[in-house]
Amino acid sequence: MNLLSEHRAFGGTQRFLQHDSAEIGLPMRFALYVPPAPKALLVFLAGLTCTEETFTIKAGAQRQAAELGLALLMPDTSPRGANVPGEADSWDFGVGAGFYLDATQAPWAKHWRMQSYLLDELIPLVQRETGLTRTGLFGHSMGGHGALTLALRHPGRFQSLSAFAPIAAPMHCPWGRKAFAGYLGEDRAAWAAHDASELMRLQRSAPYPGGILIDQGLADKFLAEQLHPEAFEAACAAVAQPLTLRRHAGYDHGYYFIASFIDDHLRHHAERLI
Amino acid sequence: MNLLSEHRAFGGTQRFLQHDSAEIGLPMRFALYVPPAPKALLVFLAGLTCTEETFTIKAGAQRQAAELGLALLMPDTSPRGANVPGEADSWDFGVGAGFYLDATQAPWAKHWRMQSYLLDELIPLVQRETGLTRTGLFGHSMGGHGALTLALRHPGRFQSLSAFAPIAAPMHCPWGRKAFAGYLGEDRAAWAAHDASELMRLQRSAPYPGGILIDQGLADKFLAEQLHPEAFEAACAAVAQPLTLRRHAGYDHGYYFIASFIDDHLRHHAERLI
Repeated sequence: MNLLSEHRAFGGTQRFLQHDSAEIGLPMRFALYVPPAPKALLVFLAGLTCTEETFTIKAGAQRQAAELGLALLMPDTSPRGANVPGEADSWDFGVGAGFYLDATQAPWAKHWRMQSYLLDELIPLVQRETGLTRTGLFGHSMGGHGALTLALRHPGRFQSLSAFAPIAAPMHCPWGRKAFAGYLGEDRAAWAAHDASELMRLQRSAPYPGGILIDQGLADKFLAEQLHPEAFEAACAAVAQPLTLRRHAGYDHGYYFIASFIDDHLRHHAERLI
Repeated sequence: MNLLSEHRAFGGTQRFLQHDSAEIGLPMRFALYVPPAPKALLVFLAGLTCTEETFTIKAGAQRQAAELGLALLMPDTSPRGANVPGEADSWDFGVGAGFYLDATQAPWAKHWRMQSYLLDELIPLVQRETGLTRTGLFGHSMGGHGALTLALRHPGRFQSLSAFAPIAAPMHCPWGRKAFAGYLGEDRAAWAAHDASELMRLQRSAPYPGGILIDQGLADKFLAEQLHPEAFEAACAAVAQPLTLRRHAGYDHGYYFIASFIDDHLRHHAERLI
């Protein structure tokens, strides 16, 4: 691991790091906040166009994380430097838009392996380095999709789960259909295996009996077309999965929304992790 | 005033605005956070290379400001779009580096009028629009210099004062000498009138008897050459100005340092303003 920069913050340390990822086949950056007395790890997956810096700089999470003893891991959102033709042509596909899955389609399958990168490489690496085992997962928008789907696809790996404005039914929105068609091809069964509402609907019992927290702004310009929290809400109800879905009048899709409710999410995770 | 964007945040509203400034002779941008129950106004002056966005995005100030009832005004750091030859050649002079004074030297004197812009135009405008009269001032680095000097040059205009890592004796550091020579010419008396430590040394009694708060990181790479808080500390002692100068081991010059101590500054101001 190569330390890019290090900053004292709230009595702990905010680091930006780079390592050569075997799963991705390229160098990958991530940010890690370690509080003064770390007790558990919480992984945040960011949204379209974001990097490891976005949440780290904008969410104001370190204050409460330091108080609660949560280490924060902020990965990047896609491979960078693969030089796949067209990888930067769209802001919602390719670079900055990995959708936290392993692509099966050429030319993406070689490097776009964010699921394996996170589950089999980065999170275990950080767990080893910090000595923290209990781990929570949350994210925003595309990263909310990532958090819900990775947590549902990998039972037992995460002990707490929440999301801000997640893409909750990607098979049924333009962002999701574009990503799934490009990364997974036209097999709808493959799509369903990465759709949070479909995954929840197929559970036989509540996978997170301690409850899932989702916050959604009602002035979010992407809400009607792209997010569909009501589909995830219905799926949770069908399998008796406890869900706290809070709809907030006036709040948009951005980081002022996230910052306004970040402390509630950190407490949600701390109560289940520590 | 032209509303550029608006975001709900912590029950209040974060706005980015633009207006045509008569003092600057150009459009100027600023950010304004209005909490749910505003009781007083607090103005933050940012450092070299920053804009109205920097503190607004990175400091995490809105949470505590909302709790305390402080509206936050974040101006830009210089005129933009003047097209003065060489204005963008340096990161520490010209664009992004107004030093919160009125330039007297060509070609800067026409537009580089940040002191008059703030004192005679922007702050009165925001006081009128918000109905808030009691006003505090703080800032970071070049903006810490701006806060200390504007507050000392204009007695009675501000009811509370603090700074993060201010350029506290600009006559005696490279940043200050470059700015003063360029904007004010070679008259050292003119320089002294914009040097916080010189201004404090000449006071006949403590101008802020309620106390001034300064935080300084000891891992700040600019501390030894550029900042000189000890000069301001000595000047305060000489005129019996109460000063709380906190030196923090391990903290650097950036916004993780500011965020770590922002709540203390907001409380310092609220206790004196409300």
